[in-house]
Amino acid sequence: CFFLFLVVLMPQALVYGGKGALGSTCVQYFKEQGWTVFSIDLVANEEADFNIVLQVSDRWEDQAQSAEKQLSENLQGKLQAIMCVAGGWIGGNAASEELIKSADLMWKQSVWTSLIAVQLAARHLAPGGLLQLTGAIPALGGTPGMIGYGMAKAAVHQLVKSLSGEGSGLPEGAIALAILPITLDTPLNRKHMPDADTSTWTPLETVAKLFFYWATKKEEPVAGSLVQLITKDNETKCVVED
Amino acid sequence: CFFLFLVVLMPQALVYGGKGALGSTCVQYFKEQGWTVFSIDLVANEEADFNIVLQVSDRWEDQAQSAEKQLSENLQGKLQAIMCVAGGWIGGNAASEELIKSADLMWKQSVWTSLIAVQLAARHLAPGGLLQLTGAIPALGGTPGMIGYGMAKAAVHQLVKSLSGEGSGLPEGAIALAILPITLDTPLNRKHMPDADTSTWTPLETVAKLFFYWATKKEEPVAGSLVQLITKDNETKCVVED
Repeated sequence: CFFLFLVVLMPQALVYGGKGALGSTCVQYFKEQGWTVFSIDLVANEEADFNIVLQVSDRWEDQAQSAEKQLSENLQGKLQAIMCVAGGWIGGNAASEELIKSADLMWKQSVWTSLIAVQLAARHLAPGGLLQLTGAIPALGGTPGMIGYGMAKAAVHQLVKSLSGEGSGLPEGAIALAILPITLDTPLNRKHMPDADTSTWTPLETVAKLFFYWATKKEEPVAGSLVQLITKDNETKCVVED
Repeated sequence: CFFLFLVVLMPQALVYGGKGALGSTCVQYFKEQGWTVFSIDLVANEEADFNIVLQVSDRWEDQAQSAEKQLSENLQGKLQAIMCVAGGWIGGNAASEELIKSADLMWKQSVWTSLIAVQLAARHLAPGGLLQLTGAIPALGGTPGMIGYGMAKAAVHQLVKSLSGEGSGLPEGAIALAILPITLDTPLNRKHMPDADTSTWTPLETVAKLFFYWATKKEEPVAGSLVQLITKDNETKCVVED
């Protein structure tokens, strides 16, 4: 009985994109801090306590429903943090043959995931909890060479502003924000850019730690913030625009 | 032979959403100025010279392909103006049962249409031609009570910025911009808001005239502009933010 009590009191986090490079690091880091961790992805992350596996071919609403069902079946109480680090990247300008196709994929990878995370947050995030989404610095302006990507990320940025407004529908005191990374230090980026200066790349564990500080209120993030992660000489700074 | 020559020289415009309230006014106005007018919509506008009719149940890429095919079959030369006034509105915050569904619909109504217009512009707009999209003033900030709508319009705003950048893929000198109306003076708005002060509503013909001035370079619009249409005492001003 005492054991059960302890289990219920462990803080709980949900990582959307929990099998990706950054997602896996977050799952691992929060586990190490003693949290119960749910992962949502297209495949299971065996390190997570619970896996919510979605079908890529399902429609948006069906993925949302499936996520809701799988989460409710296993969640006791509320989540203290929801992190959505799912996403992807494709370039292409207006003359690209793949314009529509790439914009469609970018929308699915960034916005479908973010908005499903938002819906789960509205229902299962604890008051004062953290909802983190993922934006992109280039999408603060125009992105002529990556049109679909820019639109999807701009939508995420505006979503964060909406979520921090009065009557957004999130639990009371919940903090919604987005990180805007430049280049993350992932195995894939190392493989594709073997000669790059990695001292400007942001380490995945730095990001996971940041989420943990925010989730545990060791650092107080401001709701609605677009937090740029700027790494220089292996040091990462958070820059928040007004 | 002389008659044919004249026909070919007539300037040509495409109105996306050409059967809607604003679209119909645009079709009519450009026709009155002697232009050849193409309408794209889910139903035909009999006033247009050519109708491109799309199927609402088709996927994004299929709608784009269908529009391209129907346009190429009837277009001689290039278009001087492409106006995309298609769109819609649904409210709903993060806790709304319809969150995903409404965001999906808003994306389809605003972004699918805008990006298909962009693809047609990349292929068929004359150098220096006008590409007009439709944004929304509230989406310049957060829109907690209409989350799907805000995201879609924010994506359109960012799209306009992308299109005005170097290497966007639009024809040389093409001007891409968005109008950001507040309330348009449509029959539907009059019906739903019978007691409203219509002196702050923007008349549809005012908007059509503005497009015509821009398309004929009587007023020189700035590429990448988000043009707010502010109507007061039945006078409409264009306000462009830096």
